[in-house]
Amino acid sequence: MIKFHRYSFIIKPGKISLFILLSLITQSLTAQSVEADNSKLDSAIIRSIYDEALGNGHSYDNLRVLCKDVGARLSGSPEAEKAVKWGYELLKSYAFDTVFLQEVMVPKWERGCCESGIIHLKNEKKKINISALGGSVGCEKSIKAEIIEVKYFSDLAALGEEKIKGKIVFFNRAMDPLLINTGAAYGGANDQRTKGASEASKYGAIGTIVRSLTLADDEYPHTGAMDYLDGVRQIPSAAISTADAKYLSAALKENPELEFEMDLRCVRHPDVLSHNVIAEIRGSEFPDEYIVVGGHLDSWDIGEGAHDDGAGIVQSIEVLRIFQSLKIRPKHTLRLVLFINEENGNRGGITYARVAKELGMNHIAAIESDAGGFTPRGFRIDANDDQVSRFKSWSKLFEPYEIHSFLEGHGGVDIGPLKDGKVALIGLSPDSQRYFDYHHSDRDIFENVHRRELELGAGTVAALTWLIDQYGLVNED
Amino acid sequence: MIKFHRYSFIIKPGKISLFILLSLITQSLTAQSVEADNSKLDSAIIRSIYDEALGNGHSYDNLRVLCKDVGARLSGSPEAEKAVKWGYELLKSYAFDTVFLQEVMVPKWERGCCESGIIHLKNEKKKINISALGGSVGCEKSIKAEIIEVKYFSDLAALGEEKIKGKIVFFNRAMDPLLINTGAAYGGANDQRTKGASEASKYGAIGTIVRSLTLADDEYPHTGAMDYLDGVRQIPSAAISTADAKYLSAALKENPELEFEMDLRCVRHPDVLSHNVIAEIRGSEFPDEYIVVGGHLDSWDIGEGAHDDGAGIVQSIEVLRIFQSLKIRPKHTLRLVLFINEENGNRGGITYARVAKELGMNHIAAIESDAGGFTPRGFRIDANDDQVSRFKSWSKLFEPYEIHSFLEGHGGVDIGPLKDGKVALIGLSPDSQRYFDYHHSDRDIFENVHRRELELGAGTVAALTWLIDQYGLVNED
Repeated sequence: MIKFHRYSFIIKPGKISLFILLSLITQSLTAQSVEADNSKLDSAIIRSIYDEALGNGHSYDNLRVLCKDVGARLSGSPEAEKAVKWGYELLKSYAFDTVFLQEVMVPKWERGCCESGIIHLKNEKKKINISALGGSVGCEKSIKAEIIEVKYFSDLAALGEEKIKGKIVFFNRAMDPLLINTGAAYGGANDQRTKGASEASKYGAIGTIVRSLTLADDEYPHTGAMDYLDGVRQIPSAAISTADAKYLSAALKENPELEFEMDLRCVRHPDVLSHNVIAEIRGSEFPDEYIVVGGHLDSWDIGEGAHDDGAGIVQSIEVLRIFQSLKIRPKHTLRLVLFINEENGNRGGITYARVAKELGMNHIAAIESDAGGFTPRGFRIDANDDQVSRFKSWSKLFEPYEIHSFLEGHGGVDIGPLKDGKVALIGLSPDSQRYFDYHHSDRDIFENVHRRELELGAGTVAALTWLIDQYGLVNED
Repeated sequence: MIKFHRYSFIIKPGKISLFILLSLITQSLTAQSVEADNSKLDSAIIRSIYDEALGNGHSYDNLRVLCKDVGARLSGSPEAEKAVKWGYELLKSYAFDTVFLQEVMVPKWERGCCESGIIHLKNEKKKINISALGGSVGCEKSIKAEIIEVKYFSDLAALGEEKIKGKIVFFNRAMDPLLINTGAAYGGANDQRTKGASEASKYGAIGTIVRSLTLADDEYPHTGAMDYLDGVRQIPSAAISTADAKYLSAALKENPELEFEMDLRCVRHPDVLSHNVIAEIRGSEFPDEYIVVGGHLDSWDIGEGAHDDGAGIVQSIEVLRIFQSLKIRPKHTLRLVLFINEENGNRGGITYARVAKELGMNHIAAIESDAGGFTPRGFRIDANDDQVSRFKSWSKLFEPYEIHSFLEGHGGVDIGPLKDGKVALIGLSPDSQRYFDYHHSDRDIFENVHRRELELGAGTVAALTWLIDQYGLVNED
């Protein structure tokens, strides 16, 4: 049973309909009718939130500026610092109660100049686009060697050092097209990218190339994070497009001795100082209880980080802006966090959680948008049973917005370190079909984000934030 | 309660998993466990259907051919006849039990050469793209006149003949961005296009231009059907893009006397012969009971008719192909209909229903896909309470496919004439956010259809068709 709370927002004529005013005035005193009126009032306020997101939304224009004026913004780069400045000044311009920067030490990795890949066929050379994986070492000089194609790490063990040593390992496991949610397909294939180099290195490989983690059949290499296990020789690692992976696999069948030549000039620098950008609207009743909304400000160094995670950034900003525009004063403190360094270290999320713990801050919920700016389908929650139960009780309120998916699952990378058994971690779930078409590639640009889909996501996060603020997530009955 | 039926498909090893075989063998005899096994078996078969659509789908490649080799295919045009031939030969190549053409007389309207629009500002002329509305008369010679902007037909009455006579009426009512389903927003604005010319003509207007029916802010005019009321003077009517509508509206505020010049050379010809293309897999138990799946083969004469309704055509073809590939023999006769002339007359749908009635055919359900090849979200059904109730009882089976929306509503234009109080009419509901970006414009091309989204829609229609075939839609308990 949801407890009835008094509504603590301020009505601004023209923004919230007469219907709501009337509902407030005519609330009956019996428990049952209070509950019914309550639900009507909830529906009306949620409708106002979506109206603001769709009719007066700022998310699309903010995203255009982030993508076009700042662009790609890998942690540790001057562009990432430009993004921090952009975020800080934008939040200042909205005049939220508090806007500040939180110091975070982040890794600094540079792709460097001149990355190149060449397939040496019998009588010709075929140049292909490659994209160094984030964190890869560079080559001292261009390497050229035979290729050995594998799908699973177990294939490496089966082949053994004799067949792998001195070669370039080609990981060619496709994402499973039969899985409906593409995130699950990604989860089943991304170990090749994150750990493939270390696994191949154990058997003496001198480099790896990895089929891009996308279900699209195209010419774009998709980068992403990798790291090396302690003690293995660090070998260069790059992504190739799915089209080139298919081509290469077919060419290897005809000519198993063909050679691949790759050159990467990546550089790993010492950590540098960067920042999470934080803004707050202070709570009227429980100012020391926090609800976090956020996404990550950094992106990879190719494309424009439009879906990943420019969309989450501008949607999260919209949550506070919508509260402000509708003059809804939250009971709890709403905290917007533009996390830095999700892509290659999660130092922003880790630092945020560490500081929150040191300060003894009480976070009741954290909501992240980091799965693209597509039509919202629901949320995934990582929380205890009571919290999950209350969360699911709200699903009916979202049916008019074609939002149906209230599931348990992973909340988000940035908010993950907050996990303490008490705070509810929630991730927005947009439609997943197109996400990996763009993810970590040159295609992740502003033009591939759809205005209404982005705005619907902003309204959806704002509506859930309002419900959490209004009713809490812990069952107090 | 769903009745238990014996399964009448043939198992082909490798296509349907061992799990299903085991389930069949181990079916227990108590009613409760039969039901539970039943549901497991249903789930497994539906999974096989989606696997075939996603893992071995033909819909995307078929759509490429329809869009690129046939292209735009307005009823009555040589291109529409090419589409009929394409459909017939493709269905023949699948070796379904029956493939035949059904004669349909269709309207023939041609856009003609040289359509043009010019805004005459004080010291300059601005050329804009216009697109004649389908069915419009042409101009004898270019017309040039002052413009009067309106939003509603009631504005025409308020202005009266004095202010409208001799002018070009500019209908500028935007689709409502606050409606979540864009189809509803379309429904609230399309009277301007379909009836605006007649309404304006009543007050002496000499032409109309209509803001395109899209929520996108772009430079593409979107055409679509219009018709004239009996007795009014038939005046030319064309669409202009939303960007030009905004520009023109602002320009009119500065200079209410500006003139618009338009030229259309459309021609309306006598009706010509065309065809619905029909294929069947005959039912094993109830061959005289029909389940129709279909979409419309014709499109507008601009773009490629990719979403509208190439997607519905190739998805419907997939339904029969999937049954055939999985060796599922239907109990009822599955009839695939590629309807002609949905866009400007619905003669294909009307003719199909008339012939079916004349022959005393028993249609138990008709399913149409004509809302774009986007991520499927569910269905809308137009049927009696028992049918609706059984339909809704299946929703759980679709949850693994992120399909949640089992609603009552309009089934589809082509299948509409079948309505007789007995047949259930069902429309696939894909995500609606992008549909009107492309609808009836140069943007409705193959490249704007997403392979997986298209295939998921095909699997979804096939799965529902299987359930209807298996259990029927009339509650027989």
